Amino acid sequence: MPRVLQGEIRALARVCRFIDDQRAGYRDLLGQLFPHAGAAWVVGITGSPGAGKSTLTDALVANFRARGWRVGVVAIDPTSPFTGGAFLGDRIRLQRHFEDPQVFIRSLATRGALGGLSRTTQDTVVAVAAWQADVVLVETVGVGQDEVDVAQASDTTCVVLAPGMGDDIQATKAGILEAADIFVVNKADRDGADATVRDLETMLALGALRPVPVSFGGHAALVGLSREAEAGWVPPILRSVATHGAGIVELAAAIARHREHAAQSGEERARRRRRHELMLRTMLYERWLAVFSRGLDGELARVLDRIGAGELDPYSALEELSHRFPPLGT
Amino acid sequence: MPRVLQGEIRALARVCRFIDDQRAGYRDLLGQLFPHAGAAWVVGITGSPGAGKSTLTDALVANFRARGWRVGVVAIDPTSPFTGGAFLGDRIRLQRHFEDPQVFIRSLATRGALGGLSRTTQDTVVAVAAWQADVVLVETVGVGQDEVDVAQASDTTCVVLAPGMGDDIQATKAGILEAADIFVVNKADRDGADATVRDLETMLALGALRPVPVSFGGHAALVGLSREAEAGWVPPILRSVATHGAGIVELAAAIARHREHAAQSGEERARRRRRHELMLRTMLYERWLAVFSRGLDGELARVLDRIGAGELDPYSALEELSHRFPPLGT
Repeated sequence: MPRVLQGEIRALARVCRFIDDQRAGYRDLLGQLFPHAGAAWVVGITGSPGAGKSTLTDALVANFRARGWRVGVVAIDPTSPFTGGAFLGDRIRLQRHFEDPQVFIRSLATRGALGGLSRTTQDTVVAVAAWQADVVLVETVGVGQDEVDVAQASDTTCVVLAPGMGDDIQATKAGILEAADIFVVNKADRDGADATVRDLETMLALGALRPVPVSFGGHAALVGLSREAEAGWVPPILRSVATHGAGIVELAAAIARHREHAAQSGEERARRRRRHELMLRTMLYERWLAVFSRGLDGELARVLDRIGAGELDPYSALEELSHRFPPLGT
Repeated sequence: MPRVLQGEIRALARVCRFIDDQRAGYRDLLGQLFPHAGAAWVVGITGSPGAGKSTLTDALVANFRARGWRVGVVAIDPTSPFTGGAFLGDRIRLQRHFEDPQVFIRSLATRGALGGLSRTTQDTVVAVAAWQADVVLVETVGVGQDEVDVAQASDTTCVVLAPGMGDDIQATKAGILEAADIFVVNKADRDGADATVRDLETMLALGALRPVPVSFGGHAALVGLSREAEAGWVPPILRSVATHGAGIVELAAAIARHREHAAQSGEERARRRRRHELMLRTMLYERWLAVFSRGLDGELARVLDRIGAGELDPYSALEELSHRFPPLGT
């Protein structure tokens, strides 16, 4: 039996490195862990950059630890030669938990990769859950395209906003507000908090936040992933000042209520089924793309030469390439 | 000969609807247009939400019109039940050009779709260029994942920032700063403009903004798309106050300088080749995904039932499905 199943934090760290490096046999290992990963509740923390998600996550960890829970944090950092360091600095706030063997923190540096992010995030969440965590917090920095993926990977999705960020709500990535199970207006001691809460209330009252189909590589219709409205659950709008710990008890309570509701309404089962579907599609897509690219590269260079010389257009080239790659010709 | 090639704006509008609806034969039509699309210079306008990109685009259009140029604007709006309207409002600023038959404006409502966005955007740019536009401006609202795609689709990429937006530069999506051929610090009459310019200067001096590989669906390594450093071109950092038209002449001049440099250095040719590659990969990928999904859906439902019942894990399911789909088994 893998030692990570006994709650050994160093074993979990090894498993996570194993996943990152995609070492031989990592899928077999994950297959062994998966049956033990069902008990953890996965909470997504997403929202605008600068809304204070890291501080909120830190405060939630402290709250959960006070109950004696084992807590995992999977933080998704988009990397950039320049911004990488800045976001990593954010993570430092979580350092007070680094000594605690019941708190596991994993930063995933991604390049905002669709398949790549999803696969690594999903695999890491499986591993952390199998470590017998009570709750796994999945936090994004809120830029890039990761948010919708994170919402798909969570049992409860918290969308964090802050007042006074200008077009904050309007600039929030399409589909994120609609993914919220819980809204948190953080930095609620600032001017504009009331207005932000009011905006959200109005949107909810108008039914503007009906859940929308979630896409996979932009092909919602094709792959048929969608999140149906969750009957009987109206996302609460909470206020917090995470730096002072204010509003955290209420947030933890709202997460617990949503968990109970999801279990009773069948939403938990439906959502986990979608999560497994997303995992499978991601893995199949990755494998498929690798096979595809291997065959394509040589052909493509020849075709691009002809396009560059004005002998061919990309639209006719598509038909040519499709005929040479039989699975595409149908 | 399609009438759009004669510069008829209503013919172009019909072609764009044709592309949106993917009506039968739209690829043939685009194949006919493509050989006439090479003369237009494609300028991407990207950057943070709230940096004033629409106003800057509007001012650039006016500048180009004063030279007698024919101008196309392709504006990419991520849609959301809530935010859709707000961004559409932005477009209204461009309305002063709506009466001008030498200015064509097309808003593409997208769901932030990877393949979908790129294909429609690329096809629309081809159509607008074939209308014998002198310049095509491609503008994003700066949220979501569209920015890198836009940079890939442009001959010159302008990255627009505004001072006083907090972690503006740090929150800019990874890879975007690195894609800049020209930086514009808009709203330069505000506090903090000097600091933003200084930050950019420091980053450039440190070589922190070396161009990075651009990914396709997150698989940079697999598909081999990359943007090499453009020898001898250092992105200028301009200041503007687009609402007053300040700095627009300088921006137009910088675009012209970059155009000249790209033509002489061979960058134009290299970049267009990459653009054609991206177009082809996007179209192949879309077609491929459709074929793939058709075969997969039934199998997937059965496999998900077994995962839900605890009889199977997603990692073992991957191997099962791979064996049943031969192109994936290799």
